[in-house]
Parts: sequence; C-alpha cells; structure tokens
Amino acid sequence: MSWLLTEKHLTDLARGAAVLGTGGGGDPYVGRLLVREAIREYGPVTVLDPEEVADDALVIPTAQMGAPTVVFEKLPRGTEAVAALHALETHLGRKATATMPIECGGINSMIPLLVAARTGLPVVDADGMGRAFPELQMETFGVYGVPGSPMAVAGERGETTVIDTGPDNRRMEWLARGVTIRLGGVAHIAEYAMRGADVKRTAVPRTLTLALTVGRAIREARQRNTDPVPHLAEVLSATLYGHLRVLFRGKLTDVQRRTEAGFARGRAAARSFDGDHVLELEFQNENLVALVDGEPRCVVPDLVCVLDAEKAEPITTEGLRYGQRVTVVGISTPELMRTPEALAVFGPGAFGLPYAFRPVEDLVTA
Amino acid sequence: MSWLLTEKHLTDLARGAAVLGTGGGGDPYVGRLLVREAIREYGPVTVLDPEEVADDALVIPTAQMGAPTVVFEKLPRGTEAVAALHALETHLGRKATATMPIECGGINSMIPLLVAARTGLPVVDADGMGRAFPELQMETFGVYGVPGSPMAVAGERGETTVIDTGPDNRRMEWLARGVTIRLGGVAHIAEYAMRGADVKRTAVPRTLTLALTVGRAIREARQRNTDPVPHLAEVLSATLYGHLRVLFRGKLTDVQRRTEAGFARGRAAARSFDGDHVLELEFQNENLVALVDGEPRCVVPDLVCVLDAEKAEPITTEGLRYGQRVTVVGISTPELMRTPEALAVFGPGAFGLPYAFRPVEDLVTA
Repeated sequence: MSWLLTEKHLTDLARGAAVLGTGGGGDPYVGRLLVREAIREYGPVTVLDPEEVADDALVIPTAQMGAPTVVFEKLPRGTEAVAALHALETHLGRKATATMPIECGGINSMIPLLVAARTGLPVVDADGMGRAFPELQMETFGVYGVPGSPMAVAGERGETTVIDTGPDNRRMEWLARGVTIRLGGVAHIAEYAMRGADVKRTAVPRTLTLALTVGRAIREARQRNTDPVPHLAEVLSATLYGHLRVLFRGKLTDVQRRTEAGFARGRAAARSFDGDHVLELEFQNENLVALVDGEPRCVVPDLVCVLDAEKAEPITTEGLRYGQRVTVVGISTPELMRTPEALAVFGPGAFGLPYAFRPVEDLVTA
Repeated sequence: MSWLLTEKHLTDLARGAAVLGTGGGGDPYVGRLLVREAIREYGPVTVLDPEEVADDALVIPTAQMGAPTVVFEKLPRGTEAVAALHALETHLGRKATATMPIECGGINSMIPLLVAARTGLPVVDADGMGRAFPELQMETFGVYGVPGSPMAVAGERGETTVIDTGPDNRRMEWLARGVTIRLGGVAHIAEYAMRGADVKRTAVPRTLTLALTVGRAIREARQRNTDPVPHLAEVLSATLYGHLRVLFRGKLTDVQRRTEAGFARGRAAARSFDGDHVLELEFQNENLVALVDGEPRCVVPDLVCVLDAEKAEPITTEGLRYGQRVTVVGISTPELMRTPEALAVFGPGAFGLPYAFRPVEDLVTA
C-alpha cells in the first residue's frame, strides 16, 4: 500500500492542502517549490500507509512553525527542517524510521516531504491535526497521550534548540513560540517523536492522500467546466471527512488582520450576492468560526474554507481582499477530532470563542 | 590549596559579590539564603583553585539569568540550576567534574555554590566576567575561544531547553534571553562547558576569594569604626584588581529605571556634598560608566561601585533612591579583561557608549 510521490502530484497536493489549511497553515506554494526541487535532486518520496508502519518504528514528525505573514516574506533554505530532525535524533540517541506531517493543511503538508526527499526516509500518510491549527499542543497525538517534547527547533543559521517540558504540551508551545519569535518569526521543528503503534492509535490517517484527493477533485471539475464544489462534496463523502456544506456565497466587505505574539489574528466579513445575508469569519492563523447572520454555521475543529467563487481556489487569511467573490464551505472532521478530549484541546473554547461545538452537518442541512 | 566554604563565609562573600556586581548581577541576599540552607542540609562546599583542576576535567559553569527587577520578585526553588546542569550533562553525554561561576558579582557568585552543595561537586575559584555583566557572550571564556553553547536553560516547572548556536555566543544570548523572558523573566543556566585546561587559560582566577576578601575588608573596617574605603583600597592593591579610586561623594538627585527586553536599564545622577560637582551613572543591569562634570572617570569593564557613604554597603541599581548619600568608587580590572579582544566584547562600545576605554588608574589620580 506504500506509493511513490513524484513531482506530478505536487500541484494537486498543494491545492488540497490549502483547502485543508482552512485559511492558514502557511501558503503551500513555497513548500511545493522546495519539494519539487528536492524531488528533482534526490528522487521521489515513499509514502507509507499508517497501517504499514511497524509498531516499534520511531516516527519523528517535522514541520515549519511561525506566523504565515512572516513565512511568506522569509523563504526557508530547505535544510532547516532536516536540521531539526537531526537535532532531535541526536538528543534521543536514535535514528528516525520515518517522518510524518503534524498538520495536513498548508505548507506543513509539504515540509515532511522535503525532509523525506533530502534524507531518504519515508513519510507516513497521516497527521496530528487533520487540518491546520495555530498551536503545537493542538494535536490528536497529544490529545491521546503522546508528549510533544522533547522537541527540536532549528533556525536559518544552523542554530538548534531542544525543548523538554515533560507532558506539558502547552508549555512546549509557549517556549517554542518564544524561540521562533527570536529566530525572526519562523522556524522549523521536529516534535511528537513516537512509536509506530502510537501513530496508528493517535494520528488522523491518510490525510496526505486526502489533500491529494481534494486538490484533484477541484482540478477535474475545472477541466470539465463544472462547479468544483458539488464534485468536492461527492468525493469527500467517501472519506472520513464525509460532509461538505455550502455556508455562504457572497462578496468580502471587510478584512481586519494583525500579527501579534507570533500569530496572524483577525476577522473578515462578507455580504451575500442578494444583499440579504452577512457572513463573519474569525481567524487565528486559521479560520475558526463562520457566523451567518450572527449564527454559528461551522465551528472549529470542523473546517471553514474560503474558496474563490469561480474556480474554488482556496484563499488563505493572508489572501483575503475587499471585494473578493467567495464561496465559503464547511467540512466535517473525523470522530477522532470531535471527542470531548479533542474539543478540550482544539475546540472553540480552546480559542476563547463563546460558541459550543456542533457538527457542521447538524448546523446546516445538506 | 582547596578549601571548604561554610556558612560563616557567606555574609562576607555576599557583600563582596555585591561590590563586584557593580550595581547588578542580582542581589546576592536571596542567593546567600539558598546557599545557607543547602550547606546546612548537604554540608560545606569544596572550593578548588583553578591551578588544581586537571586539564581534562569537565567544568560546567552554572548561573541564574534574568533582569534583577524580576529576580527580586520571583524566588528560585534552588533546584533549577541543578536541573540546568543535569540537562547539559545529558546532552553532552558526560558528567561534570566541577562547577564554576560565570560571573563573580551578585547572585551568580552564589548559584554555583548552591549547585555544588546539592550535587557534591567542587566549585572552581574563578569566573568568566571578573565582575557582573548583563549578557551571556560577555565572558573571558568566549573572548579567548570557548564556545558558550550547547547551553541548558531550566525553568521553575522542570522545563529544560538546550540551545546550540555553534561558535556564535551572541546568538546564544539572543535565544536564551527569549526563552528566559518566556519563563517569566528569570531562568537558570549551564553553559561554557570546558576542559580544565581552558579554565586556566580563559577564566579570571580566584574571584570567589576576591569577593570574600572585599566583603571581609568592609566588615573589618566597620568593626574598627574606620572608613572602609581606604582599607578596601589597601586590600585590593595586593590583588589583580590593584587600583581603587574614589570617584565621587555626594547625594543622589535623580534615578531613572525601566525594564525592557529582559534588562533593567537606566541612569542616575548625584550632586556632590559641596554642591559644586555632578555625577552621572549609566547602567544596563550593571553600572557601565561614571561621568563627573561630564567627563568619564571610570568606564566598563572597570568597576563602577556605588557604596553608601557611611558603611560602604554596596547599593544595586535597583536599590538607588533619591536622597541617598553615596561614595562612588572605581576599581581596576585584570589585564585579561582589558585586551582589545576583551574590550570588543564587553568594553564601552559593546554597550553603545560613546566613550573610549581608559584604565581608571589613568583617569583618576590616587
């Protein structure tokens, strides 16, 4: 069931990862270029199904960390995430058997591929967010008992930092964020080192494949000159992300965005094409909630995705502009991400939002 | 030549360390209490002359890091510096033979004693600042080629961070300061791990003994009801810190102090008792320069020490108050600290001061 990821997969994968990024996770465009160069130089990447990973394998996820606003202005060299992996391997005194994404949305679907291409390690087709989230403790890995630390943070000048906060993943996030800010707002990390058995137990499975599927569905509908959204809904219905709901169609009327404490925070508003309805979005790197006429219609961890109205191209929170014509969709998340333990870590309350979580398929009829 | 440091040494040592702290380095009072408790529990500390340390011994200096303003409000538990030592030992895969101060002024003359008492390690009678300085790269160790990293930073909740910036000690300071700020403004560290041969080559020797000598000289003069300053000058003339000059006697008229970017920065002014002269001090944690009537009279790295006019009790920059009657003295530093390489790292230019370094014994006649 393992397969080879080559250059030809990257455009679909990047588009799908941007959808799953729900506005954040960093623009995968830069990551795609880096992976393309790495694959051209080192060859294709072996993708392992999580069920194929040996129980006693050592899987070390790799990622980029930082505010998307900065990532866009500070291009990585491509060696930083490998340096983070090596720093953690050295600290653990053990070599990784494979790497894996910590999030499947945005640039972090790409960074482990870059690491895999450069090191020759396989990458596991799974992740710990099942989307993109802004903070390191927001991982199903942690929700189900895998400690994030010791973790390694690498900077662009070859600096490395190994942080150990025991079982306290929030504290790890707090310190790693501080280091990242000092490194200029973006860094590369290796964290949540775990056994293969823990991957099977705690990871959201097959999310690289999911991103590829999403990106491909949008492309295929465009090639047929049909609306990509219904086709995407159909394709998703066969996955763990079974429900897609159209939340809103309209035109952006307001965007407020600021970078503070290492995050891009803000809100956006839109008015429906008939002028009768109002959409409000709140985001912290990622879209967290969509309100229509003041009522929550899709709440984190379910996915709030802003797509351009014509081609269903995903728009990041950085890319939101006054006057854009958008389709906003909600996508349901797997049950693993909706348990009380999971919602305590990355549900609406974890972001200070005053809304209860309710599944998007219950909030909006099909 | 090794000797046992017991509880009875601590009051003189703390007073002397406060003088050598030149207004900063953290108030040794808290450190003294912690060391006293540790000695009562674990027994006295063996102090090794640097010449006694085997060339291939592994010496790991330990210290507290942070703004004195915060240290005063956030008392350490006493285990943090040991945790930093152990984290660095684990990272290096080797046990320390001894610990050592990184600075001999302020609380950091005490922290290694606390580590030594708790671990049973000896402490080397030497340090890397020969006084107190605000930043981690300001070490004779680094000036003469010992890298500061890998270094360990420990927080009060058992968190540890290992930072590796290769030979770049300024970058190490930058990242460690960021971690320290995230830890609440104060942390404990182990850094500049080095061989015994490097201790002999790069450390300022016998500065624990120096602090003890300074503190004892002030006490003895007080007990005889004589002015401690001339006695202190006489005692120092037999050490590597050969010249003491009285720079000013007067009354504080102004103090400005702020905590920013993890440092206590500010300036103070005084007027002479006869009203004819004006003193200005500038500090960043430590006093950096003393100007009398606008002319520099003692410039970093030489020591600018503010003593209360009657009992010669050292006053930290935190303790400066309007109306205090003070004697300000300058003390010369060893040649090791005045070379061009040393001045490049901790001379006036390193602090952005527009004054050239000139030895205090040349600026002020005896």
